[in-house]
Amino acid sequence: MSPEHFVIGIDYGTLSGRAVVVRVGDGAELGEAVYEFPNGVIEDRLPASGAQLPPDWALQDPNDYREVLRHAVPAALSASGVDPRRVIGVGVDFTACTVLPTLADGTPLCELPEFRERPHAYVKLWKHHAAQSHADRINALAHERGEPWIARYGGKISSEWQFAKALQLLEDDAEIFQRAERWIEATDWITWQLTGTESRNACTAGYKGIYQDGHYPSADFLAALNPGLPDLIGKLEHPLAALGSRVGSLNAEAAGWTGLPEGIAVCAGNVDAHVTAPAAQAVEPGQMLMVMGTSTCHVMNGRSAAEVTGMCGVVDGGVIAGSWGFEAGQTGVGDIFAWYVDHNLPPAYHDAARERGISVHTLLAEEAAKQPVGGHGLVALDWHNGNRSILVDHELSGVLVGATLATRPPEIYRALIEATAFGTRRIIDAFEDAGVPVTELVIAGGLLKNPFLMQIYADVTRRTLSLSGSSQAPALGSAIHAAVAAGAYPDVPTAAKAMGKVERDVYRPDPDRADAYDPLYAAYRELHDYFGQSTKDSVLHRLRRIRNEARGQS
Amino acid sequence: MSPEHFVIGIDYGTLSGRAVVVRVGDGAELGEAVYEFPNGVIEDRLPASGAQLPPDWALQDPNDYREVLRHAVPAALSASGVDPRRVIGVGVDFTACTVLPTLADGTPLCELPEFRERPHAYVKLWKHHAAQSHADRINALAHERGEPWIARYGGKISSEWQFAKALQLLEDDAEIFQRAERWIEATDWITWQLTGTESRNACTAGYKGIYQDGHYPSADFLAALNPGLPDLIGKLEHPLAALGSRVGSLNAEAAGWTGLPEGIAVCAGNVDAHVTAPAAQAVEPGQMLMVMGTSTCHVMNGRSAAEVTGMCGVVDGGVIAGSWGFEAGQTGVGDIFAWYVDHNLPPAYHDAARERGISVHTLLAEEAAKQPVGGHGLVALDWHNGNRSILVDHELSGVLVGATLATRPPEIYRALIEATAFGTRRIIDAFEDAGVPVTELVIAGGLLKNPFLMQIYADVTRRTLSLSGSSQAPALGSAIHAAVAAGAYPDVPTAAKAMGKVERDVYRPDPDRADAYDPLYAAYRELHDYFGQSTKDSVLHRLRRIRNEARGQS
Repeated sequence: MSPEHFVIGIDYGTLSGRAVVVRVGDGAELGEAVYEFPNGVIEDRLPASGAQLPPDWALQDPNDYREVLRHAVPAALSASGVDPRRVIGVGVDFTACTVLPTLADGTPLCELPEFRERPHAYVKLWKHHAAQSHADRINALAHERGEPWIARYGGKISSEWQFAKALQLLEDDAEIFQRAERWIEATDWITWQLTGTESRNACTAGYKGIYQDGHYPSADFLAALNPGLPDLIGKLEHPLAALGSRVGSLNAEAAGWTGLPEGIAVCAGNVDAHVTAPAAQAVEPGQMLMVMGTSTCHVMNGRSAAEVTGMCGVVDGGVIAGSWGFEAGQTGVGDIFAWYVDHNLPPAYHDAARERGISVHTLLAEEAAKQPVGGHGLVALDWHNGNRSILVDHELSGVLVGATLATRPPEIYRALIEATAFGTRRIIDAFEDAGVPVTELVIAGGLLKNPFLMQIYADVTRRTLSLSGSSQAPALGSAIHAAVAAGAYPDVPTAAKAMGKVERDVYRPDPDRADAYDPLYAAYRELHDYFGQSTKDSVLHRLRRIRNEARGQS
Repeated sequence: MSPEHFVIGIDYGTLSGRAVVVRVGDGAELGEAVYEFPNGVIEDRLPASGAQLPPDWALQDPNDYREVLRHAVPAALSASGVDPRRVIGVGVDFTACTVLPTLADGTPLCELPEFRERPHAYVKLWKHHAAQSHADRINALAHERGEPWIARYGGKISSEWQFAKALQLLEDDAEIFQRAERWIEATDWITWQLTGTESRNACTAGYKGIYQDGHYPSADFLAALNPGLPDLIGKLEHPLAALGSRVGSLNAEAAGWTGLPEGIAVCAGNVDAHVTAPAAQAVEPGQMLMVMGTSTCHVMNGRSAAEVTGMCGVVDGGVIAGSWGFEAGQTGVGDIFAWYVDHNLPPAYHDAARERGISVHTLLAEEAAKQPVGGHGLVALDWHNGNRSILVDHELSGVLVGATLATRPPEIYRALIEATAFGTRRIIDAFEDAGVPVTELVIAGGLLKNPFLMQIYADVTRRTLSLSGSSQAPALGSAIHAAVAAGAYPDVPTAAKAMGKVERDVYRPDPDRADAYDPLYAAYRELHDYFGQSTKDSVLHRLRRIRNEARGQS
């Protein structure tokens, strides 16, 4: 393979899209550019009409995604100094489930003049949380009917996913539902824009679309939810494309937007966390990729479809074609530390950090690192944003136990970090209890820059930690997939070996500290089971109900 | 009774003594003065030698108490404009158990030149906490032998009390123990200084000295702890003086110090919380006095010696001669709010309070008052300083349950206030479960100035709150006792009616809010029982053991 060929990975986040130019031979990242979505996240008012949106809504304008192609790709090319004619492929990854209704030719309904002022015609972003009641009905019915697929999702699908959002659409704005000829993930839609040809990738179909064993939920099941819902299947049905496969060629229009040669390979759409696994060379069974930022997403390949308690999903080819891909998640990680620092930290620490020109997180980690394991007498439950795995329960909340009048901020800060590490260990335990070994943790995401936190994770989990070597791992992952789609490598694992970047075994567990954490983790597990009990009558569930009633949200 | 007679109440606190001149006829407070103890609390180094004290020690120099007589009494007289010749009696109250070793003539051992550098020769202040292991042995043996008195103290005596401190003295410095001809509460010692005659009051003998049914613990019991300990009884034995009784006359020396007439009545010593009951006219059965400050002390009279779970003690004549006096306590109240504000409150609240020229407590209460009951979704356990009643367990610690990323400081602040109110309700439940009704709460202490907190207590307990009408209630209480000792009234309840000050029924429970608190209190009780379980294997107990081991304090 010539080292003088290049690919482009485009990573669509919540607020912007980032393009990176990558050398096919070794994965070198030669240039990048970011473009912020002009309309950002539409949460309060619809720009077209100024109409107020209900609480928990989160929309986007799909044209913003095209703007990324028009601006970020040429800018990245220019920054790299690479001759566009040497680019052989493009790959994208996206947030998910981020989904929109379109016509049969891919035109978003919100771009039809008659629907510009209809909120339901827009993209529903992953964090649109207004379909909880619809998700609840789907879950209840699935258990009632004993649907076999529900166990593949830890017993519960999320309100963020395709069917919950579609059921909301059908029941809140039936005209839009009926006019929608396609109901499509944004990652597949932008790929369609690049190629002119519709495709559907195996990852989002499986994780967000309940596609299992060759089909979506049955028409019978859907009709029991709403007689109109079986029509959704016709809006989804399409042969699935394996991850890393070529779904088409760059068409003339997209070539014009991007400055790339018409006809080059365009890869099947993918999802930000999942595409990161090959970027960090975490594709073998036992290598758990953890993308750690505001929340943590866990992705791992396994040899078979074990049903792991409380995982987000297990999907055939969901991460790497030919393997079963497992996904799990912790809903609050960096978000909890930020909440602590923003809303619970007294002035002295802010002042001291400012004086020293360091972040308060650095200051707190420095102080917390001086404590012996368990010296703070605290244990916390990391459920301030609910619990995704393994309890799959968004009505849970955070707990801090053991505070005294002598408890000081670095101690609480450390306890919160430890709580998230215990949450990871609980997930690992669930995998291993289901016969899926976890041998190594591979870390990507912003938190890998925090050595104090990393060492705690190594000690608590008794696992070595390897670190992603790219600061733009999702875009690199998309570029790796693009290289495979372009035929430069036979498959994603091979491409990952050449182009992925990882520092192996950067953090190793300290046996003494690991021993010292065992009784603290035992305390965490006891509180986990006490407060997380599935009867829904735990103190936390009752407090949530009391809260909602007091606020008039019952 | 002529309105032109006066009495003086002297209230000895932890850091200072306060004298108040009070009119006998109506309790009017005409002048007051405070004198800070020159040596304050001796915690780090002994002034005489500079010798380092071990952790948890807290000593005082008894001469500081004489200095209060020399300075505060003349200053209060001068401020009042009262002719000293019209003063007919003096009463004192003190912290307890604050205890010292003396010769048979009352000379403190620390005033003997050969013992000036011996820490054990000094006063051990109530908060000297270095005798925990001794208290543990006393409690274990009492239960092993089935001593009848242990149930009168909620199953556990405190490390602060006379026998624990004496056992520490015996085992750490036997020579001082042997030279001590008397082992005496500071309140009785200062009374001795005023009169030249030793006396022992019924209150401290009962609550701090385990004097029950006419005797101290048996020589047999004490010998089983340490063969030398039975000698302590000889250092304690003395007929007990009823509260409000005259134990002697002001002697010439004390008349010289104070500027008061020689020969006037000096009342039996008393304790700050207990003496406050008549000052706030809370002397009838069912009227629970709550002295609310950094901690809360609950004092109530009952008709018989019911054994209430987890009370601090029940003592015949312990509050009012002729009644059984109950005492209970919450170890952290205002201290918890101060800890929250000092170590958990972000800069924005400090800034906003400063800008408005109000305290952060006022600001937080203002914000918290806007919330509906239960709207924060939180419940806390108020055990940041352990739990005195009803669990009698200093190894417990604080818990906060229900936090989310949207939780804000006024919500946590409110939850902490509510937790202390729930703690009070739990104590009231224990009294009522034992057949001792609690019909009214009478509040004294600094927290009565917080209307937001007061209303929460009324709502949570479904009790009306009356407020002490004196800002120097303990000193007023001592003055009331002095008036009885001087013969101005036949008994303390009668004097309390004339001289005590209370605003009745200032806060009344709101039925809707009281109803709304019931499920929150149910959550508190569930957590109370889960975390406070007596097996000593609760998560909190394990965390405390882990903490102590990690810190090398096991």
